[in-house]
Amino acid sequence: MAQTRTAEELAKKQKEVSVAEFFERNRHLLGFDNKKKALLTVVKEAVDNGLDACEESGTLPEINVQIIEMGNDRYRVIITDNGPGIIKAQIPNIFAKLLYGSKFHTLKQARGQQGIGISAAVLYAQLTTGRPAKITSRTKKGKDAYYYELHIDTKQNKPQIVKEEKVEWKHEKGTKIELDIEASYQKGDQSVDTYIKETAIVNPHATIIYTNPKAEQFVFARVINKLPDEPKEIKPHPYGVELGILKKMLNDTDARTIQSFLTKDFSRVGSGTAKEICEKAAIGPGTKPQSLTHVQIEKLMEGIKNTKIINPPTDCISPIGSAQLEKGLKKEINAEFYTSITRSPSVYRGNPFVIECALAYGGEQQVDGSIKLMRFANRVPLLYQQSACAIFKSIIQTNWRQYGLSQSSGALPQGPLTLVVHLASVWPPFTSEAKEALAHYPEIIKEIKLAIQECGRKLASYVNKKKRIHAESKKRSYIEKYIPHVAEALTELLNLKQVEQAKIKTLLENLLEKHRGKLSKVEMENIEYDEEFAKIGKEEKKKQ
Amino acid sequence: MAQTRTAEELAKKQKEVSVAEFFERNRHLLGFDNKKKALLTVVKEAVDNGLDACEESGTLPEINVQIIEMGNDRYRVIITDNGPGIIKAQIPNIFAKLLYGSKFHTLKQARGQQGIGISAAVLYAQLTTGRPAKITSRTKKGKDAYYYELHIDTKQNKPQIVKEEKVEWKHEKGTKIELDIEASYQKGDQSVDTYIKETAIVNPHATIIYTNPKAEQFVFARVINKLPDEPKEIKPHPYGVELGILKKMLNDTDARTIQSFLTKDFSRVGSGTAKEICEKAAIGPGTKPQSLTHVQIEKLMEGIKNTKIINPPTDCISPIGSAQLEKGLKKEINAEFYTSITRSPSVYRGNPFVIECALAYGGEQQVDGSIKLMRFANRVPLLYQQSACAIFKSIIQTNWRQYGLSQSSGALPQGPLTLVVHLASVWPPFTSEAKEALAHYPEIIKEIKLAIQECGRKLASYVNKKKRIHAESKKRSYIEKYIPHVAEALTELLNLKQVEQAKIKTLLENLLEKHRGKLSKVEMENIEYDEEFAKIGKEEKKKQ
Repeated sequence: MAQTRTAEELAKKQKEVSVAEFFERNRHLLGFDNKKKALLTVVKEAVDNGLDACEESGTLPEINVQIIEMGNDRYRVIITDNGPGIIKAQIPNIFAKLLYGSKFHTLKQARGQQGIGISAAVLYAQLTTGRPAKITSRTKKGKDAYYYELHIDTKQNKPQIVKEEKVEWKHEKGTKIELDIEASYQKGDQSVDTYIKETAIVNPHATIIYTNPKAEQFVFARVINKLPDEPKEIKPHPYGVELGILKKMLNDTDARTIQSFLTKDFSRVGSGTAKEICEKAAIGPGTKPQSLTHVQIEKLMEGIKNTKIINPPTDCISPIGSAQLEKGLKKEINAEFYTSITRSPSVYRGNPFVIECALAYGGEQQVDGSIKLMRFANRVPLLYQQSACAIFKSIIQTNWRQYGLSQSSGALPQGPLTLVVHLASVWPPFTSEAKEALAHYPEIIKEIKLAIQECGRKLASYVNKKKRIHAESKKRSYIEKYIPHVAEALTELLNLKQVEQAKIKTLLENLLEKHRGKLSKVEMENIEYDEEFAKIGKEEKKKQ
Repeated sequence: MAQTRTAEELAKKQKEVSVAEFFERNRHLLGFDNKKKALLTVVKEAVDNGLDACEESGTLPEINVQIIEMGNDRYRVIITDNGPGIIKAQIPNIFAKLLYGSKFHTLKQARGQQGIGISAAVLYAQLTTGRPAKITSRTKKGKDAYYYELHIDTKQNKPQIVKEEKVEWKHEKGTKIELDIEASYQKGDQSVDTYIKETAIVNPHATIIYTNPKAEQFVFARVINKLPDEPKEIKPHPYGVELGILKKMLNDTDARTIQSFLTKDFSRVGSGTAKEICEKAAIGPGTKPQSLTHVQIEKLMEGIKNTKIINPPTDCISPIGSAQLEKGLKKEINAEFYTSITRSPSVYRGNPFVIECALAYGGEQQVDGSIKLMRFANRVPLLYQQSACAIFKSIIQTNWRQYGLSQSSGALPQGPLTLVVHLASVWPPFTSEAKEALAHYPEIIKEIKLAIQECGRKLASYVNKKKRIHAESKKRSYIEKYIPHVAEALTELLNLKQVEQAKIKTLLENLLEKHRGKLSKVEMENIEYDEEFAKIGKEEKKKQ
């Protein structure tokens, strides 16, 4: 029998859930579904933070990643960066409080976003091994280094300081985090090894020293001694603002008039545009922002929609650059043909973004089976949830047959190809907190498709020219085979001398060369495809 | 040039992010990716809450759903239930504070879990139309009804009361929520219409009155006048507890000894089992829980692992029941053959769950194309993210050819089939906050496969018998066609009379009947497949 409970009885159970408790229970949302993935997620969060911190402080990153097997499915992960360090007072919050960070309220390209990742790693360590996170940090040469042992008080989502002390530390500046976690280590596609390798490809300005649990050390030395251009922080673009946000901004602004609110709190709105918006909304430009009624705010929204405003600035984004991307790919993959493209910036929900694409074809790559896809967002490799990702969707919706690859519907194309797609944005829209796949925004899918198509067309010219040359070489070899016989037959028919037979043979050979190009069969076989067809790429680039 | 920022400068930006701001920015995580889905999500959250509240208070649910088109992509959604109402003091928190609710800290089957859903709907309304949520609630006949207009203060994740008053309300008890949202309405697979229809299938004890934006009203009247058995709240099972949680529980417990901690705070631990665990962990049963060292807690974990403890109780789960599920399916789909199964309870990460499966084959269903799949978790239809769901994975990993359907790898099987899979659990593991797909826990996938296989085998006997009868009927008709000719030929050969020819024909027909069964061709065609093959189902059931 069902019980009968009153509203009063039910009310006794109604209470607040802390965000830490929420993620503790739902740790799969953060990328801690299983032991293998957990190892990757912990490394990823720490390395991403390290790279972000270095770049923000203008330091060429050097990241040291060490994973030690402790037995019994336990691993110790130690990650050290040479970044700006963290001031003493902030260390506990940064590492042991979820939804705490510097990037959420800023529109600017960065690896981190939400202020969840690294605290989630600390939470996972605490949950599986009960061990505190061990943090060491120094902000400047000559200053003290501090050491913390931290737990998270999940009921209150607050740091719990287990230990706190000044320590000797050999590093001039930077941060080190040490976590004991339950995990499992495997090589292969979705491994820490792959993550580190791909991170090195798209971060050629970083040095990464990686020691895996087998005590093998890999050094990915930096190949460029220059930091990427620093992305600038931007204000929101009016087109991307929703009514509720506009209302909140109007309420919070320091501006005294609508006109100055529009020019100060948004990007790309000059006083002319601001006046036009006000006129279209039938609101005086001098009106006090806080005094607008709901109806007026709706009209203001309409006014924004009906006014032509230029696209957001793009110095908030720092793409890798097609040349760099191609270089990274060449370092890792031995192919015959490479091409790459960086698209012009575009916008989704008011957020600027840029798509970059590169591909490597043929060479030592596997001919059978699907192409290899590498996905990146803000220079971070995405290794899980491939089929849920906007990049995957864009690829399967592209007709690869026209580029010379076979493809069955709903699947990746087949062939000896590696495809790299990178999204750089002030706010990459991920499908989950674990940041594994991009959400299906139509504007993003469209841009990815265009980037793929541009690279695909170059690939097609290469593949087709290769096919033509192959066919030609086959024809030539047939004809050449018959020339002596034809010469012999003619000699007999016309009753010629042996010398004349040789002459006829040479004549026929010259004719062949005249009609079918100057290359001899031997030369044909020795063609360096790369050199020959690099031209195609160059010609294509001139056209743009 | 990259800027050089110090740790101090960076620290100025480091601050807390409220969970409401987080979800405001990441609304796609909550099922508000696009306008069509937003409408579904709002309705779903309100209906799920209404059904939960009615069941908890022992009321047969009657839910009224009304969607009104306001033009310009705006819709008003009004949902009224006849549940227990909400006491005045709690109304603002329930509807305008994320991560607030009664179910998170309880291990018991329910539709709601996190205390996010309905506040997220309120947040979405506020974001897109700027309108407050309007709530009316009365807890008992004779008591006052209260009316609230609520916003969410996203910076603090706190309710903001716009209006609060005592009102006249025609309903004796219950709750009504009214939201204005930006949305779009479409019929079809992932529509509100489908959600309501499927909800009615798995909730035969509920009456749902639905008025769509075209002002068409659909009444899904209840077909059972009895509430489902109320699921009991349970304590966690020792096997599912992680070290970090165990540590927290030890710290928070009222029990004075480890032995009483184990028996009181866990399910399925009697004093015998508790003593065995303590012995294996080398801890005195009388030890004070708070006094355990980290090493002792690890040993306690080992002790739990090495002690045989019976599976968790399953009265915390209330499955639909195979008979009910089949009945629901019959109401909606006109097929030839139905079968269903409720599996025995199983456990993942310490959480009990039950898988139920039903299928309907043939009849008026489409022969070409994929089968139709209906997914449910705790009686809630799952309409999005099909391919990310453990149910989908289980189906594509099943060999459907052996059950008489065609199937290409990685895809749903093809044929005139509707398949229903229901997971009932104290904690269904969803892949995102939007609760659209089940995470890939191996234990869950295994159980789903076993359920599908049981139904599949019954389907196979039916499909095969149908094929046999079809083949037989074809053979008979051939033979019958030739009997007169054979008789004629024999008459000629043996020089018989006309009378004898008729005799031979009858003889041959008798022979046919003797060898190939008694049914005449006409009878064969009139077979009521349902009646004939209902037997197969019955025989199968007896075997179990």
